[in-house]
Amino acid sequence: MSTAPARLSHSRVTITPALRAAVDRLDHRSRHQAAYHFGWITAGGAPTSADAGKAVRPALALLSAEAVGAPPEVALPGAVAVELVHNFSLVHDDLMDGDEQRRHRRTVWKLWGPSSAILTGDAMLALAQEVLLDTGLPTAAPAARLLARTTRHLIRGQVQDLSFEQRSHVTVEECIDMAAGKTGALLSASAAIGAVLAGAPETTVDALALYGDQIGVAFQLVDDVLGIWGDPAVTGKSVHSDLRSRKMSLPVSHALNQDGPLSDELATWLTTTDEPDEEELRRVAALIEGAGGRDWALAEAARRTALAEDALRGVELDAGARDELLALGRFVVDREV
Amino acid sequence: MSTAPARLSHSRVTITPALRAAVDRLDHRSRHQAAYHFGWITAGGAPTSADAGKAVRPALALLSAEAVGAPPEVALPGAVAVELVHNFSLVHDDLMDGDEQRRHRRTVWKLWGPSSAILTGDAMLALAQEVLLDTGLPTAAPAARLLARTTRHLIRGQVQDLSFEQRSHVTVEECIDMAAGKTGALLSASAAIGAVLAGAPETTVDALALYGDQIGVAFQLVDDVLGIWGDPAVTGKSVHSDLRSRKMSLPVSHALNQDGPLSDELATWLTTTDEPDEEELRRVAALIEGAGGRDWALAEAARRTALAEDALRGVELDAGARDELLALGRFVVDREV
Repeated sequence: MSTAPARLSHSRVTITPALRAAVDRLDHRSRHQAAYHFGWITAGGAPTSADAGKAVRPALALLSAEAVGAPPEVALPGAVAVELVHNFSLVHDDLMDGDEQRRHRRTVWKLWGPSSAILTGDAMLALAQEVLLDTGLPTAAPAARLLARTTRHLIRGQVQDLSFEQRSHVTVEECIDMAAGKTGALLSASAAIGAVLAGAPETTVDALALYGDQIGVAFQLVDDVLGIWGDPAVTGKSVHSDLRSRKMSLPVSHALNQDGPLSDELATWLTTTDEPDEEELRRVAALIEGAGGRDWALAEAARRTALAEDALRGVELDAGARDELLALGRFVVDREV
Repeated sequence: MSTAPARLSHSRVTITPALRAAVDRLDHRSRHQAAYHFGWITAGGAPTSADAGKAVRPALALLSAEAVGAPPEVALPGAVAVELVHNFSLVHDDLMDGDEQRRHRRTVWKLWGPSSAILTGDAMLALAQEVLLDTGLPTAAPAARLLARTTRHLIRGQVQDLSFEQRSHVTVEECIDMAAGKTGALLSASAAIGAVLAGAPETTVDALALYGDQIGVAFQLVDDVLGIWGDPAVTGKSVHSDLRSRKMSLPVSHALNQDGPLSDELATWLTTTDEPDEEELRRVAALIEGAGGRDWALAEAARRTALAEDALRGVELDAGARDELLALGRFVVDREV
């Protein structure tokens, strides 16, 4: 069994030629901008090998086929397709959020303008479906159907995220539902698509999908804890970064929905608009922790990770691939908290 | 045989319940904004029946099944899917072009902001694939594949359109290629998708696709002529509207690519940036006409319409449906020129 980082690196190497071949089919501008976004070329077009992300989704897709006893090649179009959908959403997200940098490089919209980012994202989304359907496999249609439905859920999560910014009250359930859409949906599809392409039975596919879904929400819970209490040296983000933007993250929504003075004080602070200083941020982080937001989020992440692992253990799977899926899930969720 | 306007109205009535059922599956915001865009509700959510466009694409899709002897219901998911892709592109286009009005109503981005327009468009594109693949028909996969490839070509056309605005010279071939992408690709897919869903032979599908493709380019040629010489009372646009924005339309590209003083004078004018007055616009329209731009565009539209009709006559089709397709094509292309 390989370690999770070795598996991620192996998956990246496995899918890159197929991903590049797919991107080569785009019009010249979308191709250039997608190749830049994936870290293969500089903005000017010179070859490079910039950080293109961890490729968790393609790794899940390839393992998903292996888990049902199929060769990983069966899942290759699925691995390429989920990576295209993930990156379509990043290109559009960066534009919508006004983010000028991703992985220490300028974003597509920042370099080439909003219209280019819209069209390049659109092209990547359409291409994802094309890659699956071009295989001509009898299982391509259910795989493409899964991906289309997943894209709808992903967008629903983004819409919720956008609407929460304009609301003063959000329930924990709504916040979890948003995480399930934004993060869980595509991880779920990634963990299932290889098995779908391999023609695995529905119960097996459902178990793999549940695994990805729960790992996705667990990841988001931990990510939100790190966004408030994470060590900048480990996270690469500024300290208290999510508090600075008053983000309606999962620990915040839990704390807000408790009774008591800490919750009230937090609610009042969220309506303020001044730029908070370090002392104020430390005070608010302590409020959230005092109202149980941190402990709840970590316990909920652990509970969901256990649910994810139970799902995998409840169906018959290739033992080696199952162990690698479990290790990959833990690697994604368990970071320095 | 019904007339083209009657057929369009009939198709609109046929597909609306299925289109509404599909849109109902979107998240609450995308659903609201799509329903507004389709003219079913006001911005505030009250029921209405605003102009939702001619629905040429769904009409072609339904006729495409009838033409190969299948009941039009077979094509219904295809008709809904092409209408969703068309309107995804309109929602994104309005944002990219900064257009504040469509069919005398405010555009989605103007009412709800750029992020909403991006997400609502994305959701409509994903939904188009889902509608096709949810049928579970064995022909859904080839139909979805056709739609994904078509979306790539549509985006390629939009990318070309965007890049032409930044270039001083564009060949007629490039301009035709852009029209084939922006307008021809989806009309081609619309005219073929019903036959694909009905499982028709490849030669029949190809003939229908060629028909839609040529009708699309012919439409664009005539539309470009109307954008310069059209009667505002008929077109609903201001006189010389395409000249005012110095659009690289098909008649302009033809005129520019001729030898002689008229072409040189036109090229010089295109580099100017002042707001032209009526007299100047009349002079430039005369330049383009003098260099043969108008006659060429109308002759080329007629040539392509004839090619389209030859394609339909070259394969075995239901005679009534073929006549309706021919009438619909002529209705789309032949307007007051």
